[in-house]
Amino acid sequence: MSIHGKSLIAGAPRSAGPNSFRAFNPLLGLPLEPSFEEAGEQLVGEALEAAQLALAAFRRSAPELRAVFLETIATEIIGLGDALLERAHQETGLPLERLSGERGRTVGQLRLFADLLREGSWCDARIDTALPERSPLPRPDLRRVLVPIGPVVVFGASNFPLAFSVAGGDTASALAAGCPVVVKGHPAHPGTGELVAGAVASAVRLCGLPAGVFSFLQGSAHALGTALVRHPGVKAVGFTGSHRGGRALMDAAHSRPEPVPVFAEMSSLNPVFLLPGALGERTHQIAEGLKNSLTMGVGQFCTKPGLIFALSGSATDSLKEALAVALRASAPGTLLHPGIRDAYAASIDAALKVAGVSLLAQSEKEEDPARTQARPVMLVTNAETFRTNPSLRAEMFGPAGLLVETADLAELLELASGLEGQLTATIHAAESDLPQMRELAGVLERKAGRLLLNGFPTGVEVSPAMQHGGPYPATSDSRFTSVGTAAILRWVRPVCYQNLPDAALPPELKNNNPLNLMRLVNGSLSRAPL
Amino acid sequence: MSIHGKSLIAGAPRSAGPNSFRAFNPLLGLPLEPSFEEAGEQLVGEALEAAQLALAAFRRSAPELRAVFLETIATEIIGLGDALLERAHQETGLPLERLSGERGRTVGQLRLFADLLREGSWCDARIDTALPERSPLPRPDLRRVLVPIGPVVVFGASNFPLAFSVAGGDTASALAAGCPVVVKGHPAHPGTGELVAGAVASAVRLCGLPAGVFSFLQGSAHALGTALVRHPGVKAVGFTGSHRGGRALMDAAHSRPEPVPVFAEMSSLNPVFLLPGALGERTHQIAEGLKNSLTMGVGQFCTKPGLIFALSGSATDSLKEALAVALRASAPGTLLHPGIRDAYAASIDAALKVAGVSLLAQSEKEEDPARTQARPVMLVTNAETFRTNPSLRAEMFGPAGLLVETADLAELLELASGLEGQLTATIHAAESDLPQMRELAGVLERKAGRLLLNGFPTGVEVSPAMQHGGPYPATSDSRFTSVGTAAILRWVRPVCYQNLPDAALPPELKNNNPLNLMRLVNGSLSRAPL
Repeated sequence: MSIHGKSLIAGAPRSAGPNSFRAFNPLLGLPLEPSFEEAGEQLVGEALEAAQLALAAFRRSAPELRAVFLETIATEIIGLGDALLERAHQETGLPLERLSGERGRTVGQLRLFADLLREGSWCDARIDTALPERSPLPRPDLRRVLVPIGPVVVFGASNFPLAFSVAGGDTASALAAGCPVVVKGHPAHPGTGELVAGAVASAVRLCGLPAGVFSFLQGSAHALGTALVRHPGVKAVGFTGSHRGGRALMDAAHSRPEPVPVFAEMSSLNPVFLLPGALGERTHQIAEGLKNSLTMGVGQFCTKPGLIFALSGSATDSLKEALAVALRASAPGTLLHPGIRDAYAASIDAALKVAGVSLLAQSEKEEDPARTQARPVMLVTNAETFRTNPSLRAEMFGPAGLLVETADLAELLELASGLEGQLTATIHAAESDLPQMRELAGVLERKAGRLLLNGFPTGVEVSPAMQHGGPYPATSDSRFTSVGTAAILRWVRPVCYQNLPDAALPPELKNNNPLNLMRLVNGSLSRAPL
Repeated sequence: MSIHGKSLIAGAPRSAGPNSFRAFNPLLGLPLEPSFEEAGEQLVGEALEAAQLALAAFRRSAPELRAVFLETIATEIIGLGDALLERAHQETGLPLERLSGERGRTVGQLRLFADLLREGSWCDARIDTALPERSPLPRPDLRRVLVPIGPVVVFGASNFPLAFSVAGGDTASALAAGCPVVVKGHPAHPGTGELVAGAVASAVRLCGLPAGVFSFLQGSAHALGTALVRHPGVKAVGFTGSHRGGRALMDAAHSRPEPVPVFAEMSSLNPVFLLPGALGERTHQIAEGLKNSLTMGVGQFCTKPGLIFALSGSATDSLKEALAVALRASAPGTLLHPGIRDAYAASIDAALKVAGVSLLAQSEKEEDPARTQARPVMLVTNAETFRTNPSLRAEMFGPAGLLVETADLAELLELASGLEGQLTATIHAAESDLPQMRELAGVLERKAGRLLLNGFPTGVEVSPAMQHGGPYPATSDSRFTSVGTAAILRWVRPVCYQNLPDAALPPELKNNNPLNLMRLVNGSLSRAPL
């Protein structure tokens, strides 16, 4: 499968000028062929112009057509076969088995949104029928439904080259909503991005949709991202990546003449609280589970448990021993690219320079720099050190964690209260811990989007009840999720139609309820026609 | 009913230092007794500290308790009797009859949210039950519900001293959501604000809620607003007012270490498009309706139709004649305060200085400056002048409108496409206009939150299907509404609970569905228990 190295504007490969970049194979420590042309403002303008043109028809497309479109994208991705997995493997170092699973997640996600569109009630149709005789004033006929917000820019993430990238959750949910999408691919896996973008463009053609529904830009410069976010045709932005990158996009979007919403998923420590009863009952199980969650995907998941809290004492001493054994036996793994590897090493060095932080254990096997490897590491500190060193709240992206020992439950609660926003928070509690669990849960559900009991935060289910988004700085807007069917709500806004004739109303609001939606009619939920 | 002139922190009047301000009676042109103490950072801190303390209990309060609380606020406001209306009349110049109607709207709104809480399904409960046998990985039990976002700051609006002020829609919806509220009263009606704040504080006491659920700050300085928005305890902001004020709060909220959402309703021209068939059939009816909508509340409604588009020709000539007759016969009215009167006069002067803009007609009766009066005015211009003078898109707050004549439908559509975001857009169309109406509606529903046919935009229904919020700069976030039951969605965020035992789940998510909610269970809507 040949890779042309160009951006894809409304279905057509487009050259972009003299600058180029290459992908890098972290397993071999070598750059990959071919080179990719850096898109600039010219292609940004063309992509957004095409998106705006496509919007007129796409926003009114039947939900069934969009469902078929999403399913066709899934089929086209599967149709890329092993070549897609092989290229992604070369560009990310992630094992083929993992990538195969991630492909399953990606196509499953597209099909889940197709199901959501077919059921249809997500659009929150509301009808207040006219009350012409009401005194002192009659009530008009009012009908409200969610409509697409407009063209959306999606920034692919480095750590999920399929499921959070070109045809990942942001793109799937925005297309489901009826918004044209312009993706800026992540420069660490440009070939993977090009292949998937081609699959999406095929699906656009096969479904007879306007070509501007989807464009894909290649680029490694920050300026490209900023130009995209500042383009007046853009109405919303999806991003998964670093805090610095997310905040820069938030600032760019806010300082536009017309500010637009940015949904940025940025960073999270995903604290895990181990209560004494649970720790006493399941020391080894918890140590093993923590090690597995910490090292899964070489610690490159947004829900990696980077911070563990436990009360000083014999149970925690046993945990530390068990954790140390597990970590020493763990294997180094290849990180996504050398930049991440260097940042990982620097973040551990910085933490170890803080007085009061020490190394609990690390993999006994040395990492191979030629294979861009990193060792799993667990650090340990006490409450006072953690409280007085805000730098310890920075994410260590990779398979590293920090265990914080507290003197008592009050200190544990105090540290929990001082945490910033998180994607997840986890409590391990036995029956005997339930009162403390309740108190802690009350604190943590104000800090996190997902609260887990007796589990580990990695493994984010793609389902209606998932919430992947928490208070800042975990995400830019805690009111939304980037995973699960509710992710579609980021890309829509309500419109109310007053006294429109039935023929002029969208199908969601027509009297006879042709889509059989659950609707709020005069304040009561019903699927009945009017 | 005596007015003490102090802020109210968690139910107790609090002194605030040496600076003070007074209200002004626009009908008499005289300041009103007593003076009001300017709150500063000290009281901001106390109010937010009390709110944060109250949050722990209030966020978990039973929906039924919050429903009773909202109803009690309504009863307490009614209990203030005519003294409330009299003070509001003195402070705003609005007629007693209008204020009585607005009080009805205010208490109706509180009761509507009580009904919403009792039905309860607004909280979007979602349950994905565990699939322990699923391969390759089991699915955990996931349950998601909307929870209060935290303490909310509300800025009272000048133009609705009851319905968009201390116990208006922002406060009612935030309290309904379970968020403590700190109101900064509008300095143009501080006595009205104090009376209503007292009613809310009474209801807090009567319902046995923590006193910090509600505080009320008096102040006329911008610094107070900024201090409120920048307080780390604040998690969201509601505002209705000018573009400049709203944008300043948006910027302050965005530049916090932890940015928070601002829901600002700022300005809207509420364009009205008169298609030829409708204009031919109903010239006088449309002219009369426009005049009434333009002058209602002396043009001080956020949905005042400030911009009218029509095609040049004999039907529009007839409309202009009929409008001129209606406006000449209209009466001057008292504006809310001299600052608004001066800004109104300046905005008309500025428009008239633009070459190509002329006066179509105005009230023949001169305004009385001692009574802070303004005359209804209609200006007229052509498409070219409108297109090339962006200053003509500034809101003229008061009973003024601008009629823009276009050469043909294409020009009308082009001007529609060039409009900024609006709260409302209106089309008048007869049967013969339907194809053009459809085309125009397609443009306008991308510009406005509410699209009306053959009506006038003033008169905003408070109901489930209302949408009061449109693309920027009409509001800061087109995805939400400040009027109607959906307004509650501004003050909540989702939390997902993973593998929590039934006993630890909130009632909305328990297996037996004790609140009888409509829930999304494994993707299907149902009220059935599990």
